[in-house]
Amino acid sequence: MLGTFTFHNPTKLYFGENALEGLFKELPKYGKTVQLIYGGGSLKKNGVYDAVTEILRKCGKTVVEDGGVMPNPTVEKLKEGVRIARENRVDLLLAVGGGSCCDYAKAVAVSVHCDEDPWEKYFVRYENPSCEIVPVGCVLTMAGTGSEMNNCAVITNDAQKLKIGKVFDERVNPKFSILNPIFTYTLPMRQTVSGVYDIFSHICEQYFSGTDNNVSDALSEALMRSVVDASLTVIHNPENYEARSNIMWAATWALNNLIGCGKTQDWTVHALGQALGAYTDATHGLTLAAVSLPYYRLVLPYGLSKFVRFAREVWRIDPTGKTDSEIAEAGLCAMQDWMKEIGVAVSMRDLGATENMIEGIADATLLSEGAGYHTLTRDEVIEILKESF
Amino acid sequence: MLGTFTFHNPTKLYFGENALEGLFKELPKYGKTVQLIYGGGSLKKNGVYDAVTEILRKCGKTVVEDGGVMPNPTVEKLKEGVRIARENRVDLLLAVGGGSCCDYAKAVAVSVHCDEDPWEKYFVRYENPSCEIVPVGCVLTMAGTGSEMNNCAVITNDAQKLKIGKVFDERVNPKFSILNPIFTYTLPMRQTVSGVYDIFSHICEQYFSGTDNNVSDALSEALMRSVVDASLTVIHNPENYEARSNIMWAATWALNNLIGCGKTQDWTVHALGQALGAYTDATHGLTLAAVSLPYYRLVLPYGLSKFVRFAREVWRIDPTGKTDSEIAEAGLCAMQDWMKEIGVAVSMRDLGATENMIEGIADATLLSEGAGYHTLTRDEVIEILKESF
Repeated sequence: MLGTFTFHNPTKLYFGENALEGLFKELPKYGKTVQLIYGGGSLKKNGVYDAVTEILRKCGKTVVEDGGVMPNPTVEKLKEGVRIARENRVDLLLAVGGGSCCDYAKAVAVSVHCDEDPWEKYFVRYENPSCEIVPVGCVLTMAGTGSEMNNCAVITNDAQKLKIGKVFDERVNPKFSILNPIFTYTLPMRQTVSGVYDIFSHICEQYFSGTDNNVSDALSEALMRSVVDASLTVIHNPENYEARSNIMWAATWALNNLIGCGKTQDWTVHALGQALGAYTDATHGLTLAAVSLPYYRLVLPYGLSKFVRFAREVWRIDPTGKTDSEIAEAGLCAMQDWMKEIGVAVSMRDLGATENMIEGIADATLLSEGAGYHTLTRDEVIEILKESF
Repeated sequence: MLGTFTFHNPTKLYFGENALEGLFKELPKYGKTVQLIYGGGSLKKNGVYDAVTEILRKCGKTVVEDGGVMPNPTVEKLKEGVRIARENRVDLLLAVGGGSCCDYAKAVAVSVHCDEDPWEKYFVRYENPSCEIVPVGCVLTMAGTGSEMNNCAVITNDAQKLKIGKVFDERVNPKFSILNPIFTYTLPMRQTVSGVYDIFSHICEQYFSGTDNNVSDALSEALMRSVVDASLTVIHNPENYEARSNIMWAATWALNNLIGCGKTQDWTVHALGQALGAYTDATHGLTLAAVSLPYYRLVLPYGLSKFVRFAREVWRIDPTGKTDSEIAEAGLCAMQDWMKEIGVAVSMRDLGATENMIEGIADATLLSEGAGYHTLTRDEVIEILKESF
């Protein structure tokens, strides 16, 4: 049943091979000083950095550089970004990169005018901003997190070995996002498929939950099938525009509040994956991939009918002559085959974890009571982590 | 392939059985004077009028009445609404009703400060507003048009026998919409199923088009299946919350720009239906139902592979042993069976048309070149209209 909810997603999207032209429409809405947020050197190699700075120059902006955003943006980096924004009184935070850059920009946006410690206020105490929020824009170069059209940000505290995702409200959404599928052509395949699995996992986290809704679940299945189809094209042909655009578009809708509306949601795989990420600094999507199947096999009996639906609708499992359990298991096997085919069937060991980390990762796994079909006990968390090795 | 597009839908939605509480959050954002827009007497019978005016009173608003909005709002009514808004310098247009009230409110919104004739400017010359736009809010009491979360308005010019839909931009979207499925419980079944067919037709108009896209098309199929499923419940149990909420939620997403993004779109059925509506004043959804199957049977050969996909994905037609044409035709037969079952398998005669109107309706059918699989000739329009009798 569809519960009570609000939906409000004011982000404006420019999509397509000329999407960057949208900057000419958006930049004049903001003041003169733009903090240009990006990650490593790939942006300078693939021409996107030059294209963006050229438009900033044409629009008469003063650019303040804020590069070096890491895949899992840290509290220390956040403090640096806030310092840059304050010193230069920036008017717009322009993130050019993947979800990490966009998440980081949002975290800076709510912290510039905040007179408390942002890690404590937003990520530990989970409070909402009460200060002015600096506007964020995004030029996306990697599809996966959905950060380009949502109100979430994930920040890592290395010292505390914690990686926490905070859901803000629509004031924190990017004001605009530029989505050009061509910008993802040069992404290494490992990052591409990591993003693909991140998308798939976002959908699963909302799909496998205590409450079902036929509209939301049908939309989720549509997105899952689209992502699976497109990923199987893109691994062989990284410059297939249609596949890249479908992955990018599905990523946005997988985590912009639509498919989770009025449903309970799970997010246990993310809790496990983020704990693993805090210990290994592994790519987000791959940490999710490492723990997913052991988790879903464990909770399958608690949500059997949904796993049957998943098998039939997403994986087209023929139910003839099979029990419900067999149909459900065949669905997870098909999912596993797909993960192998696109190269995300990884173990925790592959991601740099060692067995002596298991207790610590279990401690860092922030579970919500009653989220999915079954609230994990600590023993079950340990069991999943061991099976993920 | 997914083409170049922008997506921006800033409407805030409050959904659920307590959605009306959202008014307490929204009303304080606007000035003191609210133009209360509604249709006939049903609103006063079902308690919604009292509930809304009570909240307006509690929020300290001055209410200016603007009732009597007809199912197909006319240019004359629009002028009256503009006069009311100007005389009272209203700060918010609050539409309480179905799509007609919401469309009308949007048309008033762009006309209050417009110094030209709004019919000529917006609906004939199809220009965009260059004046200030009065904000619109919506309390939905009928699911169908999607007007609660889009930038469209349809106005009828009785004298010219023209019913024209104008697509504005996101400035014309309602600022907020209240969606309470319970408000639709008391709707007569004929209006309910008319709304259902309107939803289905909105999806078809975007689904059957020259360009395909796997994400958009899969989302469209998900919405179509959900609407079909829910309609089959609601005809037997009008107070089934789940079915009513799925119809309401699907209606919103069927026409808020999502599923049509980056695709060409058709809208021939709406062109035919709106012409029929201008001649008969029949309920919008039923005018679409009357002309749909003759139209789709005519264009089927031009878009065969899509009609095959439609048959398999929406109607679960088993393709075994069938040619593509047989699969496609079986899909349309299943659609026809569903239309009969929910009671929308109507003819133009049922809607009050007479054969001597055919030439006039054909003249009033505003076709777009290259919209769907095949641009109709005038002879084909006549043929479809004759087969719709």
